[in-house]
Amino acid sequence: MSETKLTSNSLQHVTVTSPFWKRYQELVVSEVLPYQWAVMNDEANINMSKDPQKIQGADKNSHAVANLKIAAGKMKGHHYGFPFQDTDVYKWLEAAAYSFSYHPNPALKTITDDLIDLIADAQEDDGYLSTYFQIDAPERKFKRLQQSHELYTMGHYIEAGVAYYQATGSEKALEIAKRMADCIVRSFGTGDGQINGYDGHPEIELALSRLYEVTHNEDYLNKALYFLRVRGTEPDFFEKQNKADGLENDIIPGMRDAGERYYLDAEPIADQKTADGHAVRVVYLCTGMAYVARLTNDKTLLEACHRFWKDIVKRRMYVTGNVGSTTTGEAFTYDYDLPNDTMYGETCASVGLTFFARQMSLLDTNSEYADVIEKELFNGALSGMALDGKHFFYVNPLEADPQASALNPGKSHVLTHRADWFGCACCPANLARLITSLDQYVYDVKPDRILSNQFIANQSEFKNGLKVEQTSNFPWSGEIHFEISNPNQVETLFGIRLPNWSKANYELKVNGDVQDIKATDGYLYISINQEQLSVDLSLDMATKFMRASNRVSVDFGKLAVQRGPIVFCAESADNEAPLWQYEVSTKSETSYEFEPDLLEGVGTITVDAKLPTMDEDGADLYTEATDEKLEDTKIKLVPYYAWANREDGAMRVWLSKE
Amino acid sequence: MSETKLTSNSLQHVTVTSPFWKRYQELVVSEVLPYQWAVMNDEANINMSKDPQKIQGADKNSHAVANLKIAAGKMKGHHYGFPFQDTDVYKWLEAAAYSFSYHPNPALKTITDDLIDLIADAQEDDGYLSTYFQIDAPERKFKRLQQSHELYTMGHYIEAGVAYYQATGSEKALEIAKRMADCIVRSFGTGDGQINGYDGHPEIELALSRLYEVTHNEDYLNKALYFLRVRGTEPDFFEKQNKADGLENDIIPGMRDAGERYYLDAEPIADQKTADGHAVRVVYLCTGMAYVARLTNDKTLLEACHRFWKDIVKRRMYVTGNVGSTTTGEAFTYDYDLPNDTMYGETCASVGLTFFARQMSLLDTNSEYADVIEKELFNGALSGMALDGKHFFYVNPLEADPQASALNPGKSHVLTHRADWFGCACCPANLARLITSLDQYVYDVKPDRILSNQFIANQSEFKNGLKVEQTSNFPWSGEIHFEISNPNQVETLFGIRLPNWSKANYELKVNGDVQDIKATDGYLYISINQEQLSVDLSLDMATKFMRASNRVSVDFGKLAVQRGPIVFCAESADNEAPLWQYEVSTKSETSYEFEPDLLEGVGTITVDAKLPTMDEDGADLYTEATDEKLEDTKIKLVPYYAWANREDGAMRVWLSKE
Repeated sequence: MSETKLTSNSLQHVTVTSPFWKRYQELVVSEVLPYQWAVMNDEANINMSKDPQKIQGADKNSHAVANLKIAAGKMKGHHYGFPFQDTDVYKWLEAAAYSFSYHPNPALKTITDDLIDLIADAQEDDGYLSTYFQIDAPERKFKRLQQSHELYTMGHYIEAGVAYYQATGSEKALEIAKRMADCIVRSFGTGDGQINGYDGHPEIELALSRLYEVTHNEDYLNKALYFLRVRGTEPDFFEKQNKADGLENDIIPGMRDAGERYYLDAEPIADQKTADGHAVRVVYLCTGMAYVARLTNDKTLLEACHRFWKDIVKRRMYVTGNVGSTTTGEAFTYDYDLPNDTMYGETCASVGLTFFARQMSLLDTNSEYADVIEKELFNGALSGMALDGKHFFYVNPLEADPQASALNPGKSHVLTHRADWFGCACCPANLARLITSLDQYVYDVKPDRILSNQFIANQSEFKNGLKVEQTSNFPWSGEIHFEISNPNQVETLFGIRLPNWSKANYELKVNGDVQDIKATDGYLYISINQEQLSVDLSLDMATKFMRASNRVSVDFGKLAVQRGPIVFCAESADNEAPLWQYEVSTKSETSYEFEPDLLEGVGTITVDAKLPTMDEDGADLYTEATDEKLEDTKIKLVPYYAWANREDGAMRVWLSKE
Repeated sequence: MSETKLTSNSLQHVTVTSPFWKRYQELVVSEVLPYQWAVMNDEANINMSKDPQKIQGADKNSHAVANLKIAAGKMKGHHYGFPFQDTDVYKWLEAAAYSFSYHPNPALKTITDDLIDLIADAQEDDGYLSTYFQIDAPERKFKRLQQSHELYTMGHYIEAGVAYYQATGSEKALEIAKRMADCIVRSFGTGDGQINGYDGHPEIELALSRLYEVTHNEDYLNKALYFLRVRGTEPDFFEKQNKADGLENDIIPGMRDAGERYYLDAEPIADQKTADGHAVRVVYLCTGMAYVARLTNDKTLLEACHRFWKDIVKRRMYVTGNVGSTTTGEAFTYDYDLPNDTMYGETCASVGLTFFARQMSLLDTNSEYADVIEKELFNGALSGMALDGKHFFYVNPLEADPQASALNPGKSHVLTHRADWFGCACCPANLARLITSLDQYVYDVKPDRILSNQFIANQSEFKNGLKVEQTSNFPWSGEIHFEISNPNQVETLFGIRLPNWSKANYELKVNGDVQDIKATDGYLYISINQEQLSVDLSLDMATKFMRASNRVSVDFGKLAVQRGPIVFCAESADNEAPLWQYEVSTKSETSYEFEPDLLEGVGTITVDAKLPTMDEDGADLYTEATDEKLEDTKIKLVPYYAWANREDGAMRVWLSKE
């Protein structure tokens, strides 16, 4: 792909106007960023008790900014937290950078500029920056990559630095990133004195690719490709490093026993058939692969991208978009193993799968990628944050019960209310940076076409003068209006994604005339050359009963309810009987209502259901089954993303089928 | 209860003649006892690989007999294994002792007599015997009772010693037990220099009660009562001992973190509302409580026995009789939490629940106790041993899949084939001693009545001259014949248990005449005074679809199949499609067949079922639900106890309901 062609459709600016998403974007500015900044500066008034239902894993404040100050020589003390504690700051910085595009914020800008200065001061002369090693273990730099997260940590800065440079023009922010990348390029490879290896946690691959796109420095892209190719070629790499570093000197206890699959280095990527291992590592690696595959056209990586994509999305993803079927190693398990109550579904994994989908969408014109992005945005990823912007889920279950979380240790990782913060606080800022960069997910711009991927109302301008205004009250309404002005009468294709949930039922009008257009690769294409164009798309907003593939044992005989992109769930806040006892059928009547005063304004669905008489407590546990009398009742459902914002209670997505 | 009245109906001898149980009793003599003896002497040719699917937790042979030899000064070396390794030998000895009642065995008797000599030599002058402490930690005796299992270990010898004395008249065996008990009586209590505490693992309470029944030494019964009363009165007892012994010097790693509930000492037994904690500890404690409650008539213990019994049997027991809902701490979780695939269901817990039920049955005339014993004998406990007598389950799931066990860490404790042996080998000999002592479970003899509790064909003699012969082909046939001869024309009540699964449908004939007798407390009573009496009971052997209380979320909308006492399960060895896809209804036709060549002869049940077309691999995971076309098919079921005796495959008890 040549750049000149790309530029012809190149995007100038997207302003998100969607009421749904403006609320979230402003919430990040007004609540999430200040709250997270306070936490990282140990100034938040949060309950750091060890109650696992309250704070997961943290026994004191974050210390993340303090670590940077100590490394910069501005404070005395030791490093506190995980070796990747720095990344909380970097992801927060990246989120803040994106927010400037829709919410100029001089007060915040002063903080972030100062933060860039601090980071520059903390960075060593050779470009290295990882405060854990600088402060407490300088002799161990790059010597225990299985656990050190050094490239992961610097990768996250590189992402933040690029974003900050792009948002503010700060050359200093970019310079830090380049110096880090240069340090990594020098230190890793097959040359004399170089380390022929890779990080335990993928991230550097995608980060170097981003930096390459800004700097056009081929060394960065080549090193990203190198990291992807070398991974798993010598599966003993980590163990050899661990031995040389002293086997018992773990940086993170237990990480030596996680197994090669966990680190995705049991074999070269080309030979890995299934998406096994730590879910976040998998989706970050996949994002890097797809990024590098697009930039280099490497066939092996392309194939691996498609193979992993299919395995994740067609065999290992929950209906809400969550991934990671087990808490042990926060990992994938095996095809069609999707337990709802013992699962992990880490928020970061949903954010990472969104990144992977975005890169796949740029590689390959097919709406299935944007379908998954939409699924994450409205369900699995969004569930990670409370409506108040100050409480977070690390784990996103599809079935939860406070009693089970408290008393069945196999479910103790499942919280039924969002925590104030986490000892391992990767998720909150990861979700924040996704929300503040939403404008980047609306369009794919390709040489001959503009693809409108998301029904996120927006006003956008392209460098060729094209302007698109999308208005809608999505996801509550499926009426989408596009107003396209084309003063230069540019000729291009404008593709509107036809969501998979609306494939069978939609109507497209151009300038008021119904069009008989079928989707191609999931897009409805309109040829644009007129000065002004009005497009109306009506999507199928019927309430649908969904089922899982019957290869999924735990969902067999169960139904989930979806309307548009939103997956719904039942909460005990709305329903009196135990949630599993409500039986619904595909023929059950449903009614939809928008409730402006509930949960910051949500659509709710009420479904006709049947309910048995509750068996008496202490009666015989097992009796001969007879045809039970069922009473007519109703079950009320709310959007999955909005669960656990009221009193503590049970929740389930998959309902019993009558 | 005075003893003279009891003696009037006192049992002389029971010979089990049931074909089903004779096979198992002889299997224990021919295979189980020699195999276990070889293992304990490190002479068995077993694969001690660390593959968790092969040997659970063991990295070398048992060393249990060697430990005794070292303690006796007959061998040099260190202790190997758990601190309670001795109990494997004692439970084996107890099993062997019972076997002499039906299978005189001079060769085995030589071994067991020598073993008694060895144990006597290993015992210290003060009666103490726990080889771990004698060999490797003599200074720590009784100093870390949370983990030491010393009273547990000696308790198991006391049980074996009593059994061996009763079986063979060996005074030496009894003497060892008395000296141990005297050591414990001296060492524990509220007096000066005594330890005011208790063992981490209950067992001594029931053992001292057994010894009291043989010796009539009130000190033993009083100390058993003391241990039950003191438990939990000072919940810091263990932690104080641990600190004094050096907090980090754990005997069994991790046991300090198990929590007070695990040890049943968070509060006094009288205040414990629910059956929480390590399942085996719970049922052993309950057995001791019921034993002491019967012998002392202690009201607090009586109430606790009923409270725990109800909580276990009515809220926390699987349909197969298994108990223990979580692998973490091998423990109970909370009421109605009965996951089928992540559960524990330890064989020892089923054996222990049988002991508890037996003691409750002696306390209280009610057939529900014998109902549970029957459930365990034919299902949950029996499942612990392979048909070859040389492979064992520690964990007994109600749903298993080799892929899940291999690839979902939350199920890695679930084996889908029985192991050769275990590092913690508590289960094999526990089940062996239950099987060889089966004759003790057939009757409860009370002053005014004989209760025939189990349909285990037998010939029995009572001290008053009464002889009872029960003939049947139970559990395959429900036709039970009793021939009672009463040469002394003793007057007594003869109660035959009416099983809960036959309550609605049975026929009782006395001397050929149908009787209109209703059950009282679950027993059909016949007055006996004639010289000869013939009784025929026809039980309801219809195949029944069972359901769980609708308070059990995981079994909602599922059916289990039971015939007589046998709970059935589906195995992939007999059924081609994934087992969860077969849908049955309460109206499905069933057919029963006895297959003499299958699984050592079992009844099988074939059920008409519906099966959907299997969804394509890699197709969309979630689609709009429509009324599926289902094909008519059949699902074949085998008895639960006999599962996993063919090729490795999936199994499930609870079937999908159409």
